[in-house]
Amino acid sequence: MTVIRSAKQMALVARRLRAQGKAIGVVPTMGALHEGHASLIRAAAVRNDVVIVTIFVNPLQFGPSEDFARYPRPFTRDLRVARAAGAAIIFSPDAHELYPEGFQTTIDVGALARRWEGQRRSGHFRGVATVVTLLFELTQPTHAYFGQKDYQQARVIQQLVRDLHLPLTVHVLPTVREPNGLAMSSRNAYLSAQERAQAAVLYQALTLARARIRAGERRAQPLLASMRRLIRRAPQTRIDYLAIVDAVTLEPVSRLRRRMAILLAVRVGPTRLIDNLLVDVS
Amino acid sequence: MTVIRSAKQMALVARRLRAQGKAIGVVPTMGALHEGHASLIRAAAVRNDVVIVTIFVNPLQFGPSEDFARYPRPFTRDLRVARAAGAAIIFSPDAHELYPEGFQTTIDVGALARRWEGQRRSGHFRGVATVVTLLFELTQPTHAYFGQKDYQQARVIQQLVRDLHLPLTVHVLPTVREPNGLAMSSRNAYLSAQERAQAAVLYQALTLARARIRAGERRAQPLLASMRRLIRRAPQTRIDYLAIVDAVTLEPVSRLRRRMAILLAVRVGPTRLIDNLLVDVS
Repeated sequence: MTVIRSAKQMALVARRLRAQGKAIGVVPTMGALHEGHASLIRAAAVRNDVVIVTIFVNPLQFGPSEDFARYPRPFTRDLRVARAAGAAIIFSPDAHELYPEGFQTTIDVGALARRWEGQRRSGHFRGVATVVTLLFELTQPTHAYFGQKDYQQARVIQQLVRDLHLPLTVHVLPTVREPNGLAMSSRNAYLSAQERAQAAVLYQALTLARARIRAGERRAQPLLASMRRLIRRAPQTRIDYLAIVDAVTLEPVSRLRRRMAILLAVRVGPTRLIDNLLVDVS
Repeated sequence: MTVIRSAKQMALVARRLRAQGKAIGVVPTMGALHEGHASLIRAAAVRNDVVIVTIFVNPLQFGPSEDFARYPRPFTRDLRVARAAGAAIIFSPDAHELYPEGFQTTIDVGALARRWEGQRRSGHFRGVATVVTLLFELTQPTHAYFGQKDYQQARVIQQLVRDLHLPLTVHVLPTVREPNGLAMSSRNAYLSAQERAQAAVLYQALTLARARIRAGERRAQPLLASMRRLIRRAPQTRIDYLAIVDAVTLEPVSRLRRRMAILLAVRVGPTRLIDNLLVDVS
């Protein structure tokens, strides 16, 4: 496995691979790799000749009061996880490699990026869209892999790839969960044992809603109300948003139809967690 | 010469050419080709295996009160001009090919795009940066050619290419002028004979400033004042802005040093014209 730090070098290597007709699978990450990332890397390895894992804690997607500085960076461990899962190249640039002096171009994915996480985390998706476009230019993926856990992010990236006519396929793979249902996230490291136990209500609320939908409920309000009640039973939780939205546009609906996403963001103690579930409503 | 209308087809052809190792020169235009465009196409033909001229009147870069509807579209004549200058492929998509239903991604080139044209024409450079990025994705240039007449646009595109790590070289070629000095522009077609004669003061003002700089003047204010006086002698002119700026940042200076751009935007009758001159100050 090769570790590349320089943007120029990465572009050179990727273009050489593409010129040789190789399929390149790219898994963009902020490091602190967990089983969710490993599952993406393994999926990429099955389908591509070369897997590139990017590890970059992107300052552009963090707000001023967010956890950029304390975001975990266990680099040596990450290398081990990536290699075991099938990565051939780690691209881990310093910030000035991607954003040199004078850098000023940003990419905005309109309405999709405004709601939910975009509304709470000002500039977040602009940072995500910008860095992902840069990483795609530098790594030249034929396939790119994202986790469903960050569902809105995945939609923003799908839209970006479509709108900019980027020549790659975006794969959004299922969320990997802890035994108690908690979605794997690098931020779970911030949870105390007690908080981690309480955080299980997020997935319980999602599956409760899904069960009621399968049983025939089509009105968003009662579904959201029952999710809210369940989550509030865990004393250290504070709901940021719960929403039932069209899975493509992310616009909220009052009556469910077609493919829906149930989205939530909840603070557990001081840690903000997000999760979601997709449900087909026939 | 081939005319391509479909974005998919264009992407396919361009990627096939690049896979064969061909150098692709791209000249993005809005059509209404004049000798300025022809000079870009000829320059592209000298250096590349294939020249693609894009013809697309980009709705995204026009303001609501601007001349999108009446912008000239002499397509058959354009084909002749492009072919004679050495174009092998014309890419002329309909708007829905570039901006299909649901399109929502835009590219913003920060500070460079805020001043001058960007300040007067809200959203203009966002439209330019977005369409140029799309056209680059679809045509895969190794070299792209722009006229110096739209100097701020050229700077925005240079910055975009650098910031997004696009693998191409941007060439900014000298403005081609009418015998009276008027910079060639598709919008010159809007001028009456009298307005066209008066429009000659734009270049006269630029060369006057250059002559005074060469004679030793280093203060922006007296230079701008003498330009203003000269332009005002033509009764149908109305100055929008005159500025002496750093040629890289486009920030105005009070004292000239290094490489400067003298920028102007002037209405002649109802038609808004821009022009500029670069001056090295040692």
